[in-house]
Amino acid sequence: MTPKLRIDRTEATPLQDQLAARIRAAVAAGHLAPGARLPSARSLAAQLGVARGTVDAAYARLGGEGYLVTRGPAGTVVAPALRIGASPASRDRPAVTPPVASPVAPPWPRVLPFRMGLPALDLFPRALWARLVARAARRIGGAGLTYPDPAGLPALREAIAAYLAVARGVACGPGQVIVTAGYQGALALLARVLLRPGEAVWCEEPGYPLARQALAAAGARLLPLPVDAEGMAVPDAAAPARLAVVTPAHQAPTGVALSLPRRQALLDWAARRDAFVIEDDYDAEFHYVGPRLPALKALDAGDRVILAGSFSKTLFPGLRLGYLVAPAALAAALARASLLLAHGAPGLEQAAVAAFLAEGHFARHLKRMRGAYAARRAALSGAVAAAFGRSLALTAGPGGLHLLARCPEGTPAGWDTGAVARAEAAGLGPGALSAQFLGPARAQGLLLGFTNIADTEAAALAAALRRAVG
Amino acid sequence: MTPKLRIDRTEATPLQDQLAARIRAAVAAGHLAPGARLPSARSLAAQLGVARGTVDAAYARLGGEGYLVTRGPAGTVVAPALRIGASPASRDRPAVTPPVASPVAPPWPRVLPFRMGLPALDLFPRALWARLVARAARRIGGAGLTYPDPAGLPALREAIAAYLAVARGVACGPGQVIVTAGYQGALALLARVLLRPGEAVWCEEPGYPLARQALAAAGARLLPLPVDAEGMAVPDAAAPARLAVVTPAHQAPTGVALSLPRRQALLDWAARRDAFVIEDDYDAEFHYVGPRLPALKALDAGDRVILAGSFSKTLFPGLRLGYLVAPAALAAALARASLLLAHGAPGLEQAAVAAFLAEGHFARHLKRMRGAYAARRAALSGAVAAAFGRSLALTAGPGGLHLLARCPEGTPAGWDTGAVARAEAAGLGPGALSAQFLGPARAQGLLLGFTNIADTEAAALAAALRRAVG
Repeated sequence: MTPKLRIDRTEATPLQDQLAARIRAAVAAGHLAPGARLPSARSLAAQLGVARGTVDAAYARLGGEGYLVTRGPAGTVVAPALRIGASPASRDRPAVTPPVASPVAPPWPRVLPFRMGLPALDLFPRALWARLVARAARRIGGAGLTYPDPAGLPALREAIAAYLAVARGVACGPGQVIVTAGYQGALALLARVLLRPGEAVWCEEPGYPLARQALAAAGARLLPLPVDAEGMAVPDAAAPARLAVVTPAHQAPTGVALSLPRRQALLDWAARRDAFVIEDDYDAEFHYVGPRLPALKALDAGDRVILAGSFSKTLFPGLRLGYLVAPAALAAALARASLLLAHGAPGLEQAAVAAFLAEGHFARHLKRMRGAYAARRAALSGAVAAAFGRSLALTAGPGGLHLLARCPEGTPAGWDTGAVARAEAAGLGPGALSAQFLGPARAQGLLLGFTNIADTEAAALAAALRRAVG
Repeated sequence: MTPKLRIDRTEATPLQDQLAARIRAAVAAGHLAPGARLPSARSLAAQLGVARGTVDAAYARLGGEGYLVTRGPAGTVVAPALRIGASPASRDRPAVTPPVASPVAPPWPRVLPFRMGLPALDLFPRALWARLVARAARRIGGAGLTYPDPAGLPALREAIAAYLAVARGVACGPGQVIVTAGYQGALALLARVLLRPGEAVWCEEPGYPLARQALAAAGARLLPLPVDAEGMAVPDAAAPARLAVVTPAHQAPTGVALSLPRRQALLDWAARRDAFVIEDDYDAEFHYVGPRLPALKALDAGDRVILAGSFSKTLFPGLRLGYLVAPAALAAALARASLLLAHGAPGLEQAAVAAFLAEGHFARHLKRMRGAYAARRAALSGAVAAAFGRSLALTAGPGGLHLLARCPEGTPAGWDTGAVARAEAAGLGPGALSAQFLGPARAQGLLLGFTNIADTEAAALAAALRRAVG
């Protein structure tokens, strides 16, 4: 029996193309078996309300493609020799089982109040950005249309090097800057260039889960090292490792700054062990209390530090742009990895961000955001303290984009993850401290992003969170 | 001795920030050693022509950061405890040697006449594109600013699925479409999800070098299979492999279409061996002679084919956008790999391309380009035949974006790569057929991209190529 073939007159696609596509799909899906007879062109045309020539043309095309054969009086049939799809052997097999199967939950997470790791989406200068993007698009030339330089747009690499010299105390040339698809893209390049499967990587405990997952997926063996009030501690007799991944400015998620002695110990370890340190400098721009240390990379006379920066917090994450500052000897290998993993980043965003930096918008935007974040941080701190009283101990680090409300000792295991699930059900998006441990969680608490909570909403949202978590 | 500290009044950066950055850099570079005395604030201010308060503020900040200490009458010195950079042990080591070091030649290749693998950069509708981009940028909302869905923008996935149903005979839902950073990005995802280090992959010989390099860099063991007039031949007793990578529409670089029997044999092999076939559908849209077969994926009732498409040829490569159509059971794992490798593609280009497809511009653009390419192909074929006579055998496949001019049997080894080097020196960019072999080259010839050669330039450029290659 012929399956129902429909066409849609509201589509821009020519009717004969639609019809041919429908027939191919019916054959591929097994609704039209090899040898099956199709309606005559005349009768199908009448049934569909199209000209007979339309059906003739579709049949002729499918004949040329080997799908259909015409058999005189027997009419048009699906090519009997056509063997579609699975062989008998494969029909007995179970469905495809992917070797790595950890699904992303659909739908893609909404931005809920308290979600950490995001800049203030309401304060981004969208009109200015749209102007710069439109200008970059209008000016696109042959160089912007062809394959991009996998190391990054030269103008952007220069703007980043100039910015880092002043803002982060990092002296580097544009040749050391590699543009990446954000921090995840940076880790993909570094893992490809520096890691062999099974090699060890030190990481902070607790620490940023997505970075650890990316490294593990790239074959790294993760060695968590505890974080205390001075940041990650480097034991004297530490196991050998190829890399250490740290967040020196504001440790993710505890917010503590890596102390100067710890920084020096880390550099010494890397030099002694021929290892590299990846400095995840994700939110160093947002510092509110006390002096801000320059980047660890600024102390790195031995060329053991690779600084990874991102525009996800300073501009917005949908850009998917970040950068590496690498020892000059690694730059070519990282560019090569970028060529093979993605062939570089799209030119349009790179050109717009280069203009954003070079024309002074970036410095102004950061200054404005530091002020706004300081205010939102203060407002939410006050509101959370008022709502939770002494049931949680609020610790605000010297900078960053979230608060940490620690649970008292003796809180039953699993409380914070349960609280987060209850909050999510109420439309709120805090994070759980215990979920940021690779090993057994040694602390619990709520991670509270303040960047997307206006001062005037803080009290109501803190109260709603208190009610939701119980 | 104090190094020269300069400031630049034309920079937007505040003077005290500049000064602090210069001092940090001097310390990091070893020009100011631990314990070294700095000029008094008064004398440095006079020397630089700035207010004394500016120097005081810079010194105070660097004191807070641990770089400087104030010692009463002895003045301000670099912190004696500061250990900068490399330890003595590391000074004895050689410079950093990256484990993978195959440099990208700077500067990034220009687009020279005859360069293959590019669309016509002069015919791309830039004004239309700039309008769509500007509109997408103006309409950017919270969802466009935050982290993108790693599987791709839903509107783009839907537009791609609708396009493939009609244009390539592929019946798939948007849930099977994963947006990628072009074909290189697609291979990175597939290697991560499907390949374990050392697993075997069949590939075409000759074939696309960058795809093979990407797979090899991801740990694949490449098994080349010769291409003849029907495409890649699948031997009955082929070695086991996890993947086969093919270009069924127009084999890269020979241009032949994979025949229907070979397609079915490939699908049978994959089903029997529990393997997957990657269909690189990079330029199927550009077909000039004879019927165009639907995608291999259209025959794939057994869910063994992953179609990889790209907008690099249909729109432009600087976009860095492509897509995979995967068996539904693999989609979640591919989205997860996209999350960990780059956190998805930037939202702006995705939104603009979705509009380009949904509003009918794509179909019109392809139709216009097919006409232009047919004309440029004919013009260059004629011009090359006239310039080279019988010294090269011109074979134009049924489609694609380049011509293949084969060398006669008995041409001395290395002729084509030498000719390409001579052409490059003359500002021309043909490719060498022998460079597309993984094993020993079994043929020589010139690969001549026709897309960026206007009809009126063809004769002069063909003559210039003839002179250059000698």
